[in-house]
Amino acid sequence: MITKDTQLCISLAARPSNIGTRFHNRLYEELDLDFVYKAFAPADLAQAIAGIRGLPIRGAAVSMPYKSDCMPLLDEIDPSAAVIESVNTIVNTDGHLVGYNTDYLAVAALLQTHGVPADREVVVLGSGGMAKAVVAALRDHGVEHGTVVARNATTGSQLADQYGWRWAAELADRRPAVLVNATPTGMAGGPDAERSPAPEQTVAAATVVFDVVAFPSETPLITTARRNGVAVVTGAEVIALQAAEQFALYTGVRPSAEQVAAASAWSRET
Amino acid sequence: MITKDTQLCISLAARPSNIGTRFHNRLYEELDLDFVYKAFAPADLAQAIAGIRGLPIRGAAVSMPYKSDCMPLLDEIDPSAAVIESVNTIVNTDGHLVGYNTDYLAVAALLQTHGVPADREVVVLGSGGMAKAVVAALRDHGVEHGTVVARNATTGSQLADQYGWRWAAELADRRPAVLVNATPTGMAGGPDAERSPAPEQTVAAATVVFDVVAFPSETPLITTARRNGVAVVTGAEVIALQAAEQFALYTGVRPSAEQVAAASAWSRET
Repeated sequence: MITKDTQLCISLAARPSNIGTRFHNRLYEELDLDFVYKAFAPADLAQAIAGIRGLPIRGAAVSMPYKSDCMPLLDEIDPSAAVIESVNTIVNTDGHLVGYNTDYLAVAALLQTHGVPADREVVVLGSGGMAKAVVAALRDHGVEHGTVVARNATTGSQLADQYGWRWAAELADRRPAVLVNATPTGMAGGPDAERSPAPEQTVAAATVVFDVVAFPSETPLITTARRNGVAVVTGAEVIALQAAEQFALYTGVRPSAEQVAAASAWSRET
Repeated sequence: MITKDTQLCISLAARPSNIGTRFHNRLYEELDLDFVYKAFAPADLAQAIAGIRGLPIRGAAVSMPYKSDCMPLLDEIDPSAAVIESVNTIVNTDGHLVGYNTDYLAVAALLQTHGVPADREVVVLGSGGMAKAVVAALRDHGVEHGTVVARNATTGSQLADQYGWRWAAELADRRPAVLVNATPTGMAGGPDAERSPAPEQTVAAATVVFDVVAFPSETPLITTARRNGVAVVTGAEVIALQAAEQFALYTGVRPSAEQVAAASAWSRET
């Protein structure tokens, strides 16, 4: 039952899905929180952000292309967002809007909880938004000299240079202990859905394989790693943990891993 | 179930009640409309209005003190609001915000449906916001020379002058055929809850008594009129009809009188 005291949280996306709306509303109900969630395709970003302050709205998830566009419109940028110049979560506390990046927070937390080694050779595949979050989190995890492997020489070398890493156009015969995929290869519905971003011998030689692709959770890369007995961190874990972080930032309540998993599975049923 | 396609309607009030939220959400459910309604106490009116455009939000009910403050922030003022310089309903169509006054629309409609005579003596008690809506609606109904009875000489004579009516400080021995109460006298919880704004002999001499006080629906004035066999128009009818007008402006769907009455009664249960 929505009342005058119910707090509203939203998402701002050019092409919203129903996933966030279902995920958050389901957990609000389960945890008996007086919140309601709704996705918006904003007609005007600056006016939408004004509305967050003016109405007020408690929090907003931000998707492409608003992750950087929203930054000048906020009052404060949390280090998690500043480090990669990308906000995916806005929290409004008494009119003061703070931008966070819960993808960064989730990746950083998973590197910790999975005990990903910081003193071995690390390769990150990709140079897009998620690759930035991954490299920043690895650097903050203690990886001083990793390698960014990306076909795009401009964004690839830029990202590598920013953290004192190396850049390479191809994976070639590298055999990193830590292999992270931050490209869309293996993503359901994409052009490379059936492909692994690394050959089996590279995967088999790794200590841990981290795939940020979340759909499916068992990507060709993760399947190959499991088959070879290599430890894995999945994109499904990233997306669940970032959603839990977001939920906790909005509500002050941290759902359990089981609650997040159940709500996440339910939110994807069609 | 709220989805990405669900349209949001809101209210903007300094001290929101739950009535609108309950009323609209109940009717959305009953009529199977993909809408959700929530009351807000805006932190900043201009930014809240920006949010209506920017998110976007389909419609907003406006209470004191925003009924006039919002007007310069809109794109168009409907005649129903322009005539009394007061907006209580904002409708957003593709970023174009139009301000309406559904109190005026409801009073005007009730004068018609109840066949209130325009060629007899008319007295309106009061000179506040609702009195303005009533006098404007009566004037547009054809009442060219009525009387505004109000203690406040400034607002009373101003309102009367605006429409070419007379002003009087007291009802005195007037015996109007049409007696309209637009003061809070008789309102539950107010200082004059038990009082009628006119003596029984005045009420008994009238053809029709119209009380804009909605709570209770059976005010001392209405009770006195009914006891004397005088036709009545109640504030409950005004509030139900203005809510139906508002609902129709937002959704394009007009609920039946029975649906409005049931949702209205339910929305007031505590």
